Amino acid sequence: LSTDSLVAGALAGDRRALGRLISLVEDGGPEVGPVMRALYPHTGRAYSLGITGAPGAGKSTLTERLVGRIRADGHSVGVLAVDPSSPLSGGALLGDRVRMQSHATDPDVFIRSMATRGHLGGMSLATPEAMRVLDAAGKDYIVVETVGVGQAEVKVTDACDTTVVVLNPGWGDAVQAAKAGLLEVADVFVINKADRKGVRAAERELAQMLELSPVERKPEIIPTVATTGEGIDALWAAIERHRAAQSDEDMALARRRRIAAEIRDIAIERYRARLEERCAGILDRLAGEVEARELDPYEAAAQLSGATESHRRGPR
Amino acid sequence: LSTDSLVAGALAGDRRALGRLISLVEDGGPEVGPVMRALYPHTGRAYSLGITGAPGAGKSTLTERLVGRIRADGHSVGVLAVDPSSPLSGGALLGDRVRMQSHATDPDVFIRSMATRGHLGGMSLATPEAMRVLDAAGKDYIVVETVGVGQAEVKVTDACDTTVVVLNPGWGDAVQAAKAGLLEVADVFVINKADRKGVRAAERELAQMLELSPVERKPEIIPTVATTGEGIDALWAAIERHRAAQSDEDMALARRRRIAAEIRDIAIERYRARLEERCAGILDRLAGEVEARELDPYEAAAQLSGATESHRRGPR
Repeated sequence: LSTDSLVAGALAGDRRALGRLISLVEDGGPEVGPVMRALYPHTGRAYSLGITGAPGAGKSTLTERLVGRIRADGHSVGVLAVDPSSPLSGGALLGDRVRMQSHATDPDVFIRSMATRGHLGGMSLATPEAMRVLDAAGKDYIVVETVGVGQAEVKVTDACDTTVVVLNPGWGDAVQAAKAGLLEVADVFVINKADRKGVRAAERELAQMLELSPVERKPEIIPTVATTGEGIDALWAAIERHRAAQSDEDMALARRRRIAAEIRDIAIERYRARLEERCAGILDRLAGEVEARELDPYEAAAQLSGATESHRRGPR
Repeated sequence: LSTDSLVAGALAGDRRALGRLISLVEDGGPEVGPVMRALYPHTGRAYSLGITGAPGAGKSTLTERLVGRIRADGHSVGVLAVDPSSPLSGGALLGDRVRMQSHATDPDVFIRSMATRGHLGGMSLATPEAMRVLDAAGKDYIVVETVGVGQAEVKVTDACDTTVVVLNPGWGDAVQAAKAGLLEVADVFVINKADRKGVRAAERELAQMLELSPVERKPEIIPTVATTGEGIDALWAAIERHRAAQSDEDMALARRRRIAAEIRDIAIERYRARLEERCAGILDRLAGEVEARELDPYEAAAQLSGATESHRRGPR
C-alpha cells in the first residue's frame, strides 16, 4: 500500500491502515514527513491523557478502567503503550503480555504498543506523531501509557493535555517519583492499590514533596483500586476538573509550547540524519584523529558541523 | 578562578579544581569546549568501569567495595555517581545520602555525584567529559555508577571500558534488566545479595535471556554479597579477565566508536544550542503558524533548519 492510501485509510478509521502508519512513525523513515503533512489538517480535536508511574504501580489496569470510563460516555479512544523495550528483545517481551483484553473487540478502541526508535529522543518524537495519527483518525481521546523510569521515558508525557502520575500506598514511593522527575509532570496524582495500608502515609509524603516544589499548582490526589474499579469515577472527575481549570489561553499556550518543542526536535532529528547519512566517512576519519590525539573532540565536532553545512549547501 | 587555573589545578590533582571543572561540565556552558581542549592531551590513561542496575540492587555498596579493591592495589580512583535526579529536587534528594563514607578521607579517592543537564542527551555528553577531567587528573581507574532505569541513563555506560550489570537473586530481575536494555551493555554480570535464595534461578533466567540475544560473547556471572565483601575478589578477577580478553585492536575499535559517538553528540549539541540561542523568535512564530494550521510541523522544521544555517553563515 502506498502512503497515500494508508493516509486515506487512517482518515476513514481503518484499523489496519492506522497500525501501519504508527509502525511507519516508529521507524522514523523519510516517509514520516509527507504522512504528517497529509494528516496535519485533520488533527487538533482529540484530548490526550498521559498515564505514568513506576513499573508495577498498576498503570495498565488503570488505563483499562479509564478506557472503560471514556467508552461509557460514548467517546472513541486510542491507546499508545510506550515501552522502553530493549533492542535485544525487540519488543518481544511485551508481546506475550496481552493488553486490555476487555476492550479487544470494541471497534471504537484502538490499542497499540510502541517501542523506541533506537536513539535518545526517538521515543519523544515518535509519540506525538503517533498521537497525531490517532487524532486524524477521529479518536476523541488518546491515552498514552509510559513507564516513568527515565528521563527519555518521562519526557513522553510532555505531549499530553493531562498527565496522571500513579503511585502506591506507603512511604518512599513519592521520593522515588520525585527522583524520577515525575512530580513536575503530574496534573493529577493517583494512589492506586488504595485497599492496602499506607494511603495516608503516601499522601503526607507527597504533600511534603510538593511543598519543596517550586510549582504553584497543587494537583489533586485520588485513591483508586484499579482492579475493582474503585475510585475511577473520582479520577475521571479530577481529570475533567483539570481540563476545565485550564483557560483557553493556558491551553493554547501549552499547545504552542509543545508544538515549538516538536518543531525543534524534528529539526535536530533532521540534522542527526544528515550527519549519519552524509558524514559517516568524515566522522570516522575525525574519530581516528581524535584517538591519535591530533585533534580534540570539540575541534572535531566543529569540523564535522562545517562539513554537514557544506554538504547541505552543495548540490545533491 | 579562571578556567586556565582550574585546568592547571586539576592537572596537579587539586580536589577543589576537579570539583569545579566537573560542575562546569555538568552545566554545559561555552567554557566546556576550551577546558576539554586543554585537558585532552593529558587523557587516555585511565581504565573505566560502569556499574549499573535497578534501584536497590546494591550498586553503591558494590562500588564502595570495588573502590576498596582498587585501592588495595595502590591505584587511585575517581567515582562518578550519575543520578537522574529531577529539576524539582535539584539533586537535594541525593545530598542526604552520604556516599561511600569509608573512602571519604582517602586523598586518592575522588567521589562526585552528577545530576543531569536538563535535556535528553545532556547526561550522556557530560559523563564522558567528566570522566576525561578525572583521567587528566591522573586517576588510574574511573568508576561510573548509574541507575539502569531508562534509555538515557543506560546509555551513560557506553563510555566505559568494562560495564558491570548488577542483578539480584530470584526470577524476574533478568527480564526487567532485558526490558531496560541492560543485557546488551553487560560485560560482566553480578548477582548481588547472593546470600538470599534464588541465585540459581537468577542465573538460569539470565542464561535464557542471553540465549535469545543476538550477541555472541557470554559475559561471566559472579555472585556477590557487597555488604560483607564476599565475591568482590572474584568480581575483580572477572573484570580483569574482560579487560585482558580484549585485544588491542578491539580496545582501539571500541574507543574509536565511542569517540565518534561523542563527536556526533557534541555536533548535535552545538546545533541545539544554535537553535535555542539564535532562533527562539523564529521558532515561536513558526509554532504559532503550526498551531493555526497554516503550516505543518515538518514544513516548520525545514524552515527552522534553513534559518539556523543562514544565521550561521551570516555575520555575527
